[in-house]
Amino acid sequence: MLRIITQRSEAEAELKRICDRIYDDQITHKEATVSEIVQTVRRQGDKALLHYTAEFDRQEFDASELRVSGSELDAAYQQVSGELLKAIELAHRQVLDFHRQRVPKSWVQFGDKEVVLGKRYNPVDAAGIYVPGGQAAYPSTVIMNAVPAVVAGVKRIAMVTPPGKEKSVNPAILVAAQVAGVEEIYRVGGAQAIAALAYGTETIPKVDVISGPGNIYVTLAKKQVYGHVGIDSLAGPSEVLVIADHTANPRHVAADLLAQAEHDSLAAAILITTDNRLASLVVEEVNHQLENHPRRIQTEKSIAHYGLVVVADSLKEAAELSNQFAPEHLELEVAEPWDMLEQIRHAGAIFLGHSTPEAVGDYLAGPNHTLPTSGAARYASALTAETFIKSSSIIHYSPAALKDAAWAIDALTEAEGLPSHGDSVRFRVEEQ
Amino acid sequence: MLRIITQRSEAEAELKRICDRIYDDQITHKEATVSEIVQTVRRQGDKALLHYTAEFDRQEFDASELRVSGSELDAAYQQVSGELLKAIELAHRQVLDFHRQRVPKSWVQFGDKEVVLGKRYNPVDAAGIYVPGGQAAYPSTVIMNAVPAVVAGVKRIAMVTPPGKEKSVNPAILVAAQVAGVEEIYRVGGAQAIAALAYGTETIPKVDVISGPGNIYVTLAKKQVYGHVGIDSLAGPSEVLVIADHTANPRHVAADLLAQAEHDSLAAAILITTDNRLASLVVEEVNHQLENHPRRIQTEKSIAHYGLVVVADSLKEAAELSNQFAPEHLELEVAEPWDMLEQIRHAGAIFLGHSTPEAVGDYLAGPNHTLPTSGAARYASALTAETFIKSSSIIHYSPAALKDAAWAIDALTEAEGLPSHGDSVRFRVEEQ
Repeated sequence: MLRIITQRSEAEAELKRICDRIYDDQITHKEATVSEIVQTVRRQGDKALLHYTAEFDRQEFDASELRVSGSELDAAYQQVSGELLKAIELAHRQVLDFHRQRVPKSWVQFGDKEVVLGKRYNPVDAAGIYVPGGQAAYPSTVIMNAVPAVVAGVKRIAMVTPPGKEKSVNPAILVAAQVAGVEEIYRVGGAQAIAALAYGTETIPKVDVISGPGNIYVTLAKKQVYGHVGIDSLAGPSEVLVIADHTANPRHVAADLLAQAEHDSLAAAILITTDNRLASLVVEEVNHQLENHPRRIQTEKSIAHYGLVVVADSLKEAAELSNQFAPEHLELEVAEPWDMLEQIRHAGAIFLGHSTPEAVGDYLAGPNHTLPTSGAARYASALTAETFIKSSSIIHYSPAALKDAAWAIDALTEAEGLPSHGDSVRFRVEEQ
Repeated sequence: MLRIITQRSEAEAELKRICDRIYDDQITHKEATVSEIVQTVRRQGDKALLHYTAEFDRQEFDASELRVSGSELDAAYQQVSGELLKAIELAHRQVLDFHRQRVPKSWVQFGDKEVVLGKRYNPVDAAGIYVPGGQAAYPSTVIMNAVPAVVAGVKRIAMVTPPGKEKSVNPAILVAAQVAGVEEIYRVGGAQAIAALAYGTETIPKVDVISGPGNIYVTLAKKQVYGHVGIDSLAGPSEVLVIADHTANPRHVAADLLAQAEHDSLAAAILITTDNRLASLVVEEVNHQLENHPRRIQTEKSIAHYGLVVVADSLKEAAELSNQFAPEHLELEVAEPWDMLEQIRHAGAIFLGHSTPEAVGDYLAGPNHTLPTSGAARYASALTAETFIKSSSIIHYSPAALKDAAWAIDALTEAEGLPSHGDSVRFRVEEQ
C-alpha cells in the first residue's frame, strides 16, 4: 500500500531510506563474484564469455556466433511493426536533434606576448554500449546510449546485449541499433560483457568508454573496470518524485507513479503534495489502476516498499525535500511549474506542467533518459555526447612570456622542492 | 639508465608496459585494507579518523583539533616569503581567468506547440579537496583543485590534508587555500580522509564531489566511495611524453624529462624523437643533470624503470605512438608544433614549442594541472569547473504536443511492455 506521511521528520527519514535502498550488504558479497568474472574474462577472453553465457543465460554457442550477423540484422526489420519502426525513427530524430545542441568545440585564446591557451576536443576512439535483455530489453535504451556516441563522432560503437531463447536478440533492439547507426552487436551480457568491452577478447576489441544500464552485476562490473576505461555512471534502480498541488489530476499522478513502479521491484515512486485531498485520491487511484495491471505483483511490491506520499506545508517545503532526495526524475504538476524551477537544485530531469508525464522524456522529447539515480543528481548529470568526448588543454608560451613567468615558477618550484621543474624554465631563459 | 629504442614493435611493447605500470597485483591486496578503513570511518566517524591518524601519520590529538584554526591560518602568512605569496597570487589569478572560460550556462529552446527543452546547470552543494602532505605538499595542488570549485559556484569547499610533525600543516598550503578562498581545512589524510568527506563524521560534514591527487590508498578509497559521491578521476603517477625533432635543445628536453621523473619513483618520462643525435645527447644530458640532483636516488629509479627514448622514423609515427600511450602531458618540441596538433587525439595537456616546458602549465599558465594519467586521456579530461557542476534536463510539453506524440509513445511502451507508461500519456490525451 502507498503510505501517506504528514510529519516532515518522518518524511525525511523515509526519503533517506528510499534513496539509500541499494546500499545494502548484499553488494559486498556480489563484488567478489563480479571480480572473479571480470578477471576470468580478462585472462581467458572468448572462452570465458561463452562459459558464463552458458551458465547465466543458458545459451550455448561458439565464438563465431558472438557477433550478431548481417542477416539477423536484416531480418529484425521484418519482425517489428511499421508503427514501431516509425516511432523508433521519430524518437531517434528528436533525440539526435537535442544531443547536437551545445556540443563543445575546440577553442584558443590569445594573450600577451604570444601566449596561446585553449582546449581541443576529440571523441574517444571506441564506445561500448550495454543494453539489458529479457524483460528490460528496451529499444529506447539503444537510442539513448547510441545517439550521444554518434553525435560525439565516435568512429567505433560496439553494443552488447545478453542472448534470449535460442540465442536470439530482441528485434526491436536490433532495429533501434541500426536506426541509430550501430551494427557491431554482440550477444553477451552481464559482468562478462562489461569485462569484454573493457579488456577486449579475441572477438570483441576493447573500447574506451562504456555506457548503459544493467542489473547490479553489470553496475558492479562497471565500477571495477572504471579507471581502465571510462564509464557513464553507476546506474541504480529508477525513481520518480512528483511535486503536485491542488491543480494536479490524481488519475494522471497515479499513472506517473505506477509508470515508475512497474520497472522493477526496487523502483521508487514518491509524491509530495501540498493538497491533502489529492494525497488520498492518488492513493485510491493507484489501487484502482493496479487492479488489472499486467505487472501487478512486482509493481505492488515496489509501491509497498519504495512508494510514498508526503503531504507538505508548502511548495517551498516540497522543493526542499526534493532537493534532499535529488530525484532522477522530477515532475512539477503544479499551477506555476516555471516559478518553482529556481528552487530546484538537484534533479536529473525536470518535467514541467500537467501535460509532461515522464514517459515523454523516457522516449522521445529529446533529452537523454540515462539519468543519475539514488541521489547521484547531487553531483551528476544526464548522459550526453560529452560522455564520449574529452579535451586536451593547449598551452603555448613564447620566449618573452616564459621570461616574465620565470620568477614565479622559480618561487613555486623552490617551495615544492622540485629542482628540475625550475631547471626546465631557467635553462631556457638563461639561453635566450 | 635511460634506454634508447629504435624498433617500433619494441617501442610499442615498452610504452604499453609503462602505461600499465599501476595495474599490478598489489592493488588487489590494498583494496581490502582500504575497504576496512573506509567502512570503519563510516561507522565510527571522528574516533576512527583520530585512530588512523595516530597509526599512519604518527600524530595524536583530539577531535577539536581536526579543523585547522583561524590563528593557524593567520600564522601561515608569516611563514611564507613575500616572493612565494606573490607567486601563489599570480598563479591563482591566471588559473582563475582560464577556468572562467566556457563555464556552461543554463539554456532553453522553444519548439513547435509550446514544447520547451533545455538544461539547467547548478553547482554541487559541497566539494571536498584532497591535498597530499609530506614531500608532495604542493600549494599548486591547492590552487588547481580549489579554483574549479570556486568558479563552479560551490558554496562549501572543505580541504583535507595529512598532518606533519607536531600536527602541523605546510604553511604554503594554508596560504594557497586562503588565496583561493578555502578556509575549512582538516588535518587528516589517506583513505580515512576520503571516507570522512564521502560519509561525513561528527566534525567533517559530508561533501558531494571529491577531487585531488593522492597515493594509491587515497585513489582506491576514491574509487570505493564513487557512486556515493562524485569524484574527479582516479589519478595515477605522473608522466610526460616529449616529441622532439632536430630543432629541440637536448639540455631543455633532459630537464623536462627529469622534471617528471623527480616526482616519484613511479613517474614516467618518455622522449620520442626523429633525430638520432638528439636521442644520444638527451641521454648524456640526463646523466649530467642527475649528478647533483637533490632527489637523485628516486629520480634515477624512475628514469631506469619508466624512462624511455624512442627514435621514430617520422613525426607521424611519433604522433601514432603518442596516441597509443595517451600521455598526461605531451610536449611538442618541434619546429612546427601547431602543424602536429591535428594528429594528436589523446593527451591530457599539450605544450607547444620550445619555450613551453610542462612547468609552465604545472604552475600558472591557467589550464588545470590535474590531468588524466595511465592512458586515461583516451577517455578523460583535465579537472574543470564542470567537475563541480551538474545539469538537470528541462522538458515541457503542451497538451497539443503531447497529443501529437501519443501514437509513438504508445507504440514504444507497448513494445517495451510498460503499460503505465502508456497510461500516463493516454489518460491525459483522452481527457483533453
